[in-house]
Amino acid sequence: MSYVPVPADKFSFGLWTVGWQGRDPFGDATREPLDPVETVHRLAGLGAYGVTFHDDDLVPFGAPERVREAHVARFRKALEATGMAVPMATTNLFTHPVFKDGAFTANDREIRRFALRKTMRNIDLAAGLGAHTYVAWGGREGAESGAAKDVRAALDRLKEAFDLLAEYVTGQGYDLRFALEPKPNEPRGDLLLPTVGHALAFIGRLERPELFGVNPEVGHEQMAGLNYPHAIAQAIWAGKLFHLDLNGQSGVKYDQDLRFGAGDLRAAFWLVDLLEQSGYAGPRHFDFKPPRTEDTAGVWASAAGCMRNYLVLRERAAAFRADPAVQEALRAARVDELSRPTLGPQETPDALLADRAAFEDFDPAAAAERGMAFEHLDQLAMDHLLGV
Amino acid sequence: MSYVPVPADKFSFGLWTVGWQGRDPFGDATREPLDPVETVHRLAGLGAYGVTFHDDDLVPFGAPERVREAHVARFRKALEATGMAVPMATTNLFTHPVFKDGAFTANDREIRRFALRKTMRNIDLAAGLGAHTYVAWGGREGAESGAAKDVRAALDRLKEAFDLLAEYVTGQGYDLRFALEPKPNEPRGDLLLPTVGHALAFIGRLERPELFGVNPEVGHEQMAGLNYPHAIAQAIWAGKLFHLDLNGQSGVKYDQDLRFGAGDLRAAFWLVDLLEQSGYAGPRHFDFKPPRTEDTAGVWASAAGCMRNYLVLRERAAAFRADPAVQEALRAARVDELSRPTLGPQETPDALLADRAAFEDFDPAAAAERGMAFEHLDQLAMDHLLGV
Amino acid sequence: MSYVPVPADKFSFGLWTVGWQGRDPFGDATREPLDPVETVHRLAGLGAYGVTFHDDDLVPFGAPERVREAHVARFRKALEATGMAVPMATTNLFTHPVFKDGAFTANDREIRRFALRKTMRNIDLAAGLGAHTYVAWGGREGAESGAAKDVRAALDRLKEAFDLLAEYVTGQGYDLRFALEPKPNEPRGDLLLPTVGHALAFIGRLERPELFGVNPEVGHEQMAGLNYPHAIAQAIWAGKLFHLDLNGQSGVKYDQDLRFGAGDLRAAFWLVDLLEQSGYAGPRHFDFKPPRTEDTAGVWASAAGCMRNYLVLRERAAAFRADPAVQEALRAARVDELSRPTLGPQETPDALLADRAAFEDFDPAAAAERGMAFEHLDQLAMDHLLGV
Amino acid sequence: MSYVPVPADKFSFGLWTVGWQGRDPFGDATREPLDPVETVHRLAGLGAYGVTFHDDDLVPFGAPERVREAHVARFRKALEATGMAVPMATTNLFTHPVFKDGAFTANDREIRRFALRKTMRNIDLAAGLGAHTYVAWGGREGAESGAAKDVRAALDRLKEAFDLLAEYVTGQGYDLRFALEPKPNEPRGDLLLPTVGHALAFIGRLERPELFGVNPEVGHEQMAGLNYPHAIAQAIWAGKLFHLDLNGQSGVKYDQDLRFGAGDLRAAFWLVDLLEQSGYAGPRHFDFKPPRTEDTAGVWASAAGCMRNYLVLRERAAAFRADPAVQEALRAARVDELSRPTLGPQETPDALLADRAAFEDFDPAAAAERGMAFEHLDQLAMDHLLGV
Repeated sequence: MSYVPVPADKFSFGLWTVGWQGRDPFGDATREPLDPVETVHRLAGLGAYGVTFHDDDLVPFGAPERVREAHVARFRKALEATGMAVPMATTNLFTHPVFKDGAFTANDREIRRFALRKTMRNIDLAAGLGAHTYVAWGGREGAESGAAKDVRAALDRLKEAFDLLAEYVTGQGYDLRFALEPKPNEPRGDLLLPTVGHALAFIGRLERPELFGVNPEVGHEQMAGLNYPHAIAQAIWAGKLFHLDLNGQSGVKYDQDLRFGAGDLRAAFWLVDLLEQSGYAGPRHFDFKPPRTEDTAGVWASAAGCMRNYLVLRERAAAFRADPAVQEALRAARVDELSRPTLGPQETPDALLADRAAFEDFDPAAAAERGMAFEHLDQLAMDHLLGV
Repeated sequence: MSYVPVPADKFSFGLWTVGWQGRDPFGDATREPLDPVETVHRLAGLGAYGVTFHDDDLVPFGAPERVREAHVARFRKALEATGMAVPMATTNLFTHPVFKDGAFTANDREIRRFALRKTMRNIDLAAGLGAHTYVAWGGREGAESGAAKDVRAALDRLKEAFDLLAEYVTGQGYDLRFALEPKPNEPRGDLLLPTVGHALAFIGRLERPELFGVNPEVGHEQMAGLNYPHAIAQAIWAGKLFHLDLNGQSGVKYDQDLRFGAGDLRAAFWLVDLLEQSGYAGPRHFDFKPPRTEDTAGVWASAAGCMRNYLVLRERAAAFRADPAVQEALRAARVDELSRPTLGPQETPDALLADRAAFEDFDPAAAAERGMAFEHLDQLAMDHLLGV
Repeated sequence: MSYVPVPADKFSFGLWTVGWQGRDPFGDATREPLDPVETVHRLAGLGAYGVTFHDDDLVPFGAPERVREAHVARFRKALEATGMAVPMATTNLFTHPVFKDGAFTANDREIRRFALRKTMRNIDLAAGLGAHTYVAWGGREGAESGAAKDVRAALDRLKEAFDLLAEYVTGQGYDLRFALEPKPNEPRGDLLLPTVGHALAFIGRLERPELFGVNPEVGHEQMAGLNYPHAIAQAIWAGKLFHLDLNGQSGVKYDQDLRFGAGDLRAAFWLVDLLEQSGYAGPRHFDFKPPRTEDTAGVWASAAGCMRNYLVLRERAAAFRADPAVQEALRAARVDELSRPTLGPQETPDALLADRAAFEDFDPAAAAERGMAFEHLDQLAMDHLLGV
Repeated sequence: MSYVPVPADKFSFGLWTVGWQGRDPFGDATREPLDPVETVHRLAGLGAYGVTFHDDDLVPFGAPERVREAHVARFRKALEATGMAVPMATTNLFTHPVFKDGAFTANDREIRRFALRKTMRNIDLAAGLGAHTYVAWGGREGAESGAAKDVRAALDRLKEAFDLLAEYVTGQGYDLRFALEPKPNEPRGDLLLPTVGHALAFIGRLERPELFGVNPEVGHEQMAGLNYPHAIAQAIWAGKLFHLDLNGQSGVKYDQDLRFGAGDLRAAFWLVDLLEQSGYAGPRHFDFKPPRTEDTAGVWASAAGCMRNYLVLRERAAAFRADPAVQEALRAARVDELSRPTLGPQETPDALLADRAAFEDFDPAAAAERGMAFEHLDQLAMDHLLGV
């Protein structure tokens, strides 16, 4: 196989990913800025289908309207020239010092209002560029110390903000849904909506929950030691996987944003298997940072690696599922039996209580003796992953 | 102050806590079994108001009906003699080998049915003993390898189980609500409903969500590096803090179940502050394990320490909130301003867009210069915690 | 390739690995005990070359001398029948309640003396069975609370114990060296000698440091979020890699003891690459636990998987190193240049100070512009790992 | 008590701590630069006795000699005016892009030579300002991917660098010792010498080990989930605690650099207890970052908090040790017995073997029954910590 990406693979990248200049908490930038127009052309050339952005990736914070329009016009022209889509956009509510205590949940009310306006403005642009998903990462919504943030009040404000934005999008007639991006910590000591679960639960309390889903990032869940494919499965189960951020992370530590495939390779395999099986039709969006050791050639090598690794894993996962030995092993592990309801059709509590086979005549010791045959199954998966 | 607990403090303990014999993955039991009757009397003597149990804590797994009745009768007598309450009960769906692949989500259907019956049986007992909360910890609902568990099917089965149990409880007319207990891992590699967030989100998809809340355990959230008081705040915000498990944990590692106050002391302070401020009226339930280095005297010392530490922290948190210097520091940090809605009354998106003060005339640089004064506030908290 | 292990591959297993019955902190045993004689035959049949043991794996704790001899005789017969070696043995100083506060560092002096005697006794047996390595894992040498253990005194006692054992081994003329096994925590809250580094540092202060090296376990380093291949590299660099424990772990959490290849697959690849390149000639010893979901067939499947995965990774690592594209990429990344001394032959500080090219005429900005080309190199590694 | 610091308390701060402008991976600076001269005066006014610096904190990277001299002269004048000491200095080998792949272990040889020269130059300044400790943190000595760094070659180069620097310091007759600062990760995926243990082990292989010790930082050990007081105890035991960095960290996550006392408060208590008991006479050096939410007033409040918390904990630890109830509890826990050698005077292995009380007549079951009384002891510690 060739593993050469094509637009039908639906790979997309953020401007801020390949454009990251390598500034980190202990070091200065190692790379020059990338022109968004060049990024669009380069990504198109590599086989991507789309590009995404924060408002400030495209137009410098605070730029006058005329400058803004010029930036947008150049970008739009690059999109048209390449056929690249803008499936998603998002707001930068974390870089400028004004957001040091948060945006929608900043203690200062006028900062909250400014954050809403900044977001609304970029929503207009996103809709105008054809985006159908608007991501919200609350990078500064959190705290380092216990009394600094009243979490219940903060959740009230967060709800207020998203209810307002949903009302706005609806009023404008935009075909746009929101995808909330959870993260446990960094840059704040603890962030609100730290995991996919917390975000899903929060959404359930919004006024227009149908407009909201999640945008889980590989590394963000893994920073909490959580199983990313499990989180994605719960999001799909809830009908809420609106978008996702693919990258790599080596366990519980600072946010690494490695290219997809680096970090936990087995999790990447199970993720691709799940996405492809589940019928997820959205973008395969990469949110990674080429290490600051790399020059521009390394940046594009890293971006190409993200897509290549996805394609290799997609091939391996398909072979795994197609293998008759695997299908037999799945049956031996009774994985299919889990899809069968526990209760009979319309079985009531009383009917269950009346079934002596379920309790009185059930032999736990005998049932306990049956091996699950998971190790054999997992070894087959390993063989397929490794292409043995 | 004396820090002597009284029943009005609503402290409760699981039979399995002080009764833990010290068997761990690398070592045999170091203590003899405790008779539940003795436990009830000892806890009452220490000032607790309630005791909780798994079915198998009270009656050995598989005991004949007559034996079961005798155990229950003795226990009930001890309750009556001491005035101790049973505010909560739960099912052991993890110790017996039959549950090695889970209970409500075991691949084997007949094990799922058995698990439901085991639970229904203990619900009857719980209701009979006056419990109003039924905790469900899915200790074996999870997996070590990717293909072994179809997570979406497992969530279907979990929903099916809880829908059935809610129907049962409703049909029986029990005044009983369920509290789901999340945990990220251990004893399975990854558990379903790994955090408070995932459990809250899951509850939103049940048939009778009003009957379900959460039972967050200090150490379980901290095993994922998450902020426990933040999780409790989100649960309260959602109206779902039905019960909680207090203990101690030293960060991201195996489940330690230290006594309350050990482990992350600052988190314990903020938790008590939150519980007392929020009007949480449920039990302060300790789910800890006296270290296996301890003999029986150490067990009771450890149990007493849990309550003492809660009372000390309650006193300190109250003093913190009452201190005028703190109140001034909270205002300086604009914590009160977060409780003020971001929007004006009935303010629409259009109205917000029309407010030039919110964007066009807003000066981000000037707003960014205002310090938040969080360090001063947190130092006051530290002083109160340490009783300086 | 066939990936069928042969004795020349030097694979060994502990009796306690395949023999683990599945008792965990929340559950009872799911498997019957395995007869060590059967284990020897089964492992030999699978292609292993050696077997290792704790004293209590072979002979029950406290068994009378006659019983002990009978157990040993049967075991020795199985070894002879199969040609299996005993390259290593070790002492169980953690299961019996007497060790609840440690063995060589128990606060109780008589327990420390007993632990020494138990160890000396098994050293005799190990030497008699031909072992050349004696592993020491201090599973209970640690604490849960701050005042309980005076760490400096504990390190004195630990040194005293190992000095005594070295004197004993020397006096007896045994051809036996010790390998200390670090672990950060579990079953104690914090263990002494928590990482490979701490153990290496400790060894430097023993009376006969030449008799001591380390026995690093994959999962133990990864429980601290550390890079296992880096730890092995430092151990090799110090001439101290006497033995190692191969298994799998999914990040910072409880000790999982998954089969080798499960968990962090990329780390496993780099480990095998390092071992094979470095000329490490010792056993490839597996210290894993077949999940308690497995029956006996699953146990042996899991053991076979450990060896198979090693062989696959060995093949992939060899192909990686042999690939001319990789060699070119290594040069592009200047990996070879790191093997060249920084100083010239006999270059003194004064000579370095006199070299204007090193500072005065050095252009940091120009040097900073050179990309390291690590992403391209790592993608080649990924391709080889995946067999693309 | 007043908790007002005085120079005899030996509190010192890095210029880079209070001078941190708040630039983090996701945000721009929130504070103006601080003039080092102002810092010296402010710290002196707060009661500190010393100030420390990286070369680039005092003099901008690449500044011409004349500029450098002017900066140094102003700084020296401030020191003289205030009586502040410079007990320690260090080199910035991580901020400039030239160090993106490391300094002493960069793959590029000329970068390694430049790093040595940069260090030697600042050593001259450090010695000239009276520093007796020179800290070395290898912030970029590490890797994100497996083939990029040959760890054994890197350790060779690291040893080469430190041997050269020791030769230089010796040749110059400087009264200066080196303190190596370990860190597990960030800003590189994995750093060399990740923990105190690895650094101590590395030192043992240097040419002049007596000139090298460690500079452990609270948060760095805790980022690996390790017990900081245990690490300090091993460093003291090895005679290698040359310096230390006090701050706060909330568990396994990104490097937080909270003020001392924030984060793990119990660990801070045990640390102070250990330092004060052990006779450690060096500086109590704070290496923290005032959160970027703070303005200048918050910066100084945060710095003052570091010292105040140390003084409070010092008082509490002293009271703990002086309390007769604690002394009795320590005896009940046999903590004193651990200081008694396990062997008798000159007791040989043979003598131990001949002592039937140690094995043949020892009753493990009886010994196992003795409780360790650690929970009672720890509760006394908690009471003293909380000032109850």
